[in-house]
Amino acid sequence: MSDKKGLPKRSENYSEWYNELVRKADLAENSPVRGCMVIKPYGYAIWEKMQQQLDKMFKDTGHTNAYFPLFVPKSFLEKEEGHAEGFAKECAVVTHYRLKADPNKKGALIADPDSKLEEELIVRPTSEAVIWHTYRSWIQSYRDLPILVNQWANVVRWEMRTRLFLRTAEFLWQEGHTAHASAEEAKAETKQMLDVYAEFVEQYMAVPVIKGTKTANERFAGADDTLCIEALMQDGKALQAGTSHFLGQNFAKAFDVKFLNKQNQQEYVWGTSWGVSTRLMGALIMAHSDDNGLVLPPKLAPIQVVIVPIYKTEEQLNNLTETIQTIQKELKAKGISVKFDDRDSLTPGFKFADWELRGVPVRLALGERDLANGTIEVSRRDKERGEEGAKTVESIAGIADKIEALLADIQVNIYQKAHNFREANISKVDSYEEFKKVLNEKGGFILAHWDGTSETEQKIKEETKATIRCIPLEMPEEAGVCMLTGKPSKQRVVFAVAY
Amino acid sequence: MSDKKGLPKRSENYSEWYNELVRKADLAENSPVRGCMVIKPYGYAIWEKMQQQLDKMFKDTGHTNAYFPLFVPKSFLEKEEGHAEGFAKECAVVTHYRLKADPNKKGALIADPDSKLEEELIVRPTSEAVIWHTYRSWIQSYRDLPILVNQWANVVRWEMRTRLFLRTAEFLWQEGHTAHASAEEAKAETKQMLDVYAEFVEQYMAVPVIKGTKTANERFAGADDTLCIEALMQDGKALQAGTSHFLGQNFAKAFDVKFLNKQNQQEYVWGTSWGVSTRLMGALIMAHSDDNGLVLPPKLAPIQVVIVPIYKTEEQLNNLTETIQTIQKELKAKGISVKFDDRDSLTPGFKFADWELRGVPVRLALGERDLANGTIEVSRRDKERGEEGAKTVESIAGIADKIEALLADIQVNIYQKAHNFREANISKVDSYEEFKKVLNEKGGFILAHWDGTSETEQKIKEETKATIRCIPLEMPEEAGVCMLTGKPSKQRVVFAVAY
Repeated sequence: MSDKKGLPKRSENYSEWYNELVRKADLAENSPVRGCMVIKPYGYAIWEKMQQQLDKMFKDTGHTNAYFPLFVPKSFLEKEEGHAEGFAKECAVVTHYRLKADPNKKGALIADPDSKLEEELIVRPTSEAVIWHTYRSWIQSYRDLPILVNQWANVVRWEMRTRLFLRTAEFLWQEGHTAHASAEEAKAETKQMLDVYAEFVEQYMAVPVIKGTKTANERFAGADDTLCIEALMQDGKALQAGTSHFLGQNFAKAFDVKFLNKQNQQEYVWGTSWGVSTRLMGALIMAHSDDNGLVLPPKLAPIQVVIVPIYKTEEQLNNLTETIQTIQKELKAKGISVKFDDRDSLTPGFKFADWELRGVPVRLALGERDLANGTIEVSRRDKERGEEGAKTVESIAGIADKIEALLADIQVNIYQKAHNFREANISKVDSYEEFKKVLNEKGGFILAHWDGTSETEQKIKEETKATIRCIPLEMPEEAGVCMLTGKPSKQRVVFAVAY
Repeated sequence: MSDKKGLPKRSENYSEWYNELVRKADLAENSPVRGCMVIKPYGYAIWEKMQQQLDKMFKDTGHTNAYFPLFVPKSFLEKEEGHAEGFAKECAVVTHYRLKADPNKKGALIADPDSKLEEELIVRPTSEAVIWHTYRSWIQSYRDLPILVNQWANVVRWEMRTRLFLRTAEFLWQEGHTAHASAEEAKAETKQMLDVYAEFVEQYMAVPVIKGTKTANERFAGADDTLCIEALMQDGKALQAGTSHFLGQNFAKAFDVKFLNKQNQQEYVWGTSWGVSTRLMGALIMAHSDDNGLVLPPKLAPIQVVIVPIYKTEEQLNNLTETIQTIQKELKAKGISVKFDDRDSLTPGFKFADWELRGVPVRLALGERDLANGTIEVSRRDKERGEEGAKTVESIAGIADKIEALLADIQVNIYQKAHNFREANISKVDSYEEFKKVLNEKGGFILAHWDGTSETEQKIKEETKATIRCIPLEMPEEAGVCMLTGKPSKQRVVFAVAY
């Protein structure tokens, strides 16, 4: 049962609103292990819906799942220089493989000095190193390519400042690792998976994204090119929702993975990797929810419809139950997940607020008078309380068809609202003064010209905290001059302050 | 493409046969990290089928999934004494959270001494400690109970002698952790989950099991009672396929988890935990496979039917393809997974051997003459080559219905074979001499009387390597005397040498 009191308003303290919402809606909580979270059953159920859909999309594009070790030998991380630099500073390091009784303190345990590892093991921050080592023995000729493998796993990147789902030391994710016989094929794979991510985030999470390329600064450690999708949260900050990397031959060279090509020549293999994580939960929560709680798109809601009976006596409840169970059965037959909330110690008002907090898309309420009239009250979570159409009275006859259509409509409406918000928060600016002004007063995505250098990018970041989220793939080229240096620019890039 | 040459015969070297089979059938391989395995796509696809079915069974019995941290603070492990003793000797210990450049060796990394953790973290060997710590804040009153949570996760128990799937340092598993208001309810849960495991292993893996209780010696570290299912492998050794623990109030006491009961009194919570792991893959492989490779029960086979075209020219292949695709479509419509093996560089003989090695339950072969006759060759993997009914010629008309029935028949037949084998390898013995003789000459499960003491159990183990696999739940009580000490015994227990 959730504690609803005191969810702060977004307008007053967005950050606190997020933290409290995650806690009160039973999505996740902090664990006693610094930076690691407990994903609670309701939060995990949403993640499972995400996983199922993504997994299906990966398989539909020819990928299979596999599993690689949690640990990476330290020497493996050293092999790809950029990769090592990128991850060394946030690695959990295993140094011993046994505990023993502490001779100085009864009941206490210490790492047994005799169990010190010859070579330390790193808890994987990502698996390129161990996977490319493995691919070496899997690949001899072009006939062994492509390899299209995905892994669902936990990874650890030590973080000092953590936030549930958004930035945690341990997180859950999937990491695709593919190997190809040509750069073209690997690049096409990189783009294909970016498109899969964009489709998932837009069609299922109902969050619009901008597809783009990362600048060299923001690229994955070890990649030649990083593609990304960027989403906008309600506080005007950006969130990177997924990345897809073209690895070139970097890992093949680091781990000596060659293949005999059709011309009978030895060649290094081309690679990609791509991933999304439990961070998507953060994006989902922040993109749609309101001051009353979570708002879930129907396609990812563990419970799509809740039915609350309105009654005083047990006899009244019995009268309602038969009709409710019939409706429940009809909805289930359509593949709609539905919960009959017959908890007897709680008032309807409490239940309404509880399911509102948890973001259930549709709430049905049925009382004696409704039953007599053959009607039922239908509330949709995507509209504000009191907003037109938020609550309607419908005939019980044919209700399942109506609910099915309503869920589809809610899915579209949630996307449309997020899309409208994003469109209202994309600004084109042409001077650095204007850039800083918009950033301060409005936030959002800012389209501006940039001279293409890391120095300029870095200076803007230091002065404004805004980073280049991406060089957009689907916006027209447009000549201009860099807002900071006045040097020529071929197209606007997307700036924002980001999570 | 798998390398079939040189699979040893079971009768010559069972252990080597297993290792080679796992490797050649592309199920798993050793990784560069000592004791950790790589689960290859084909092996992982079988594990996914297992997961899906188990997950469904857990949800059907009211459980939900959640996720808890990979790391356990060392002090948590110390809290439950028996638990600490049981796991301390096999723990991977994280001591640092950062690497830095080695000042003495260019390109090398060392654990940064400045990043030493105040308290070491243990990579979870199991999650009771961290979960019961969490439950403390989830549980106040009897209204918060029961908590019925499961987690799919990786765990690490350092092992010196490892074997793919059977004993690895890191393995994948699920661990259920439930909390209850009474001992009776927790005991019923413990038994319910044992029954779920037994049903899964028998009905899906087609492996018969004996349900029983572990002796105090073999009990889970921290449990009051451990129930288990024990299966028999083809070499006469036992394999523990799943365990379900009644934890009493041990973890509630260690982590101070109390609830207000209906009588308004504070009481410690009652707990259970239960798990099965990728070890089940080992059981599946060892229970059914033969000298030609894997034998998979249809319910867990990633590919249930393979269709191999027999042709010389491309024109012939084209003639066959249309019919094959029609059959494929009919099978898919029935929910049967089917692969059309049209690889053009391989002979039919090679393909036959390849799919045989991979344990695909049904193979269809279609050539020009078959096509002219309206027939197709059907081979079933569960029968030996040349055995009656192993290969038949069927009419193409109505083939999908026949295959559907055949798959059901194979599922039953595989179970029956394993059951017959097990029955033939259960021996009742009444003297210690006879016990040792049967153990040496035949192996298998041995039903014998035991005086109920750990000393006797230990002595038998030291002298014969056989352990008490369980005190069976479903065998009649029968008074007797202990084969070693002559002291009275109320029922026979199950001895075996075990994996």
